[in-house]
Amino acid sequence: MTKNEQNTSLDAIDHIAIQVANIQEALDWYGKHFKCTIEYQDNSWAYIKFANIHLALVVASQHPNHLAFIVDNAAKYGSLQTHRDGTKSVYVDDPAGNTIEFVESSTCK
Amino acid sequence: MTKNEQNTSLDAIDHIAIQVANIQEALDWYGKHFKCTIEYQDNSWAYIKFANIHLALVVASQHPNHLAFIVDNAAKYGSLQTHRDGTKSVYVDDPAGNTIEFVESSTCK
Repeated sequence: MTKNEQNTSLDAIDHIAIQVANIQEALDWYGKHFKCTIEYQDNSWAYIKFANIHLALVVASQHPNHLAFIVDNAAKYGSLQTHRDGTKSVYVDDPAGNTIEFVESSTCK
Repeated sequence: MTKNEQNTSLDAIDHIAIQVANIQEALDWYGKHFKCTIEYQDNSWAYIKFANIHLALVVASQHPNHLAFIVDNAAKYGSLQTHRDGTKSVYVDDPAGNTIEFVESSTCK
């Protein structure tokens, strides 16, 4: 990739997280309606792969609805918290109150 | 693409829509933090291209927060409504109340 291509490339949205009341019920619904792959699931979190993005199913007690981006210096947006998969990130509100997660790239596998 | 590849391919999420209070304010914020391209904007709607997906900024009076999928027979999910860009779609709630938009593929450019 040339420098020019790097400059003009766009950022990707790493994942979308939506709150659900019951993880298994939601997995059944998304699996029924769409071709997608469950990469992880337990009683409080699931991670579904689509062709272009991952969808996280979360519970309200653990995570807000959010859009996540992997960035090189997440700490500039606030104090990082460590998640159970080892990644570190910070949640920030956009001007309208939508939650954006900045995930530190160096903590991603 | 072989038949086998078609069978194993995953669906894509076409776009994510999030409600914002002020379209321009939100565009300024996303443009400041991310490499993305504004494909359309007016006072009540904006459409931003990221590397892997589009993000729609919408106002609460017009659209709910939602995830949109392009499908071949959207009408099976309910009565289609026509949008100003000519696409037809229907909004359906997942079991937790998250809004999913099924966009009829034949109405997409």
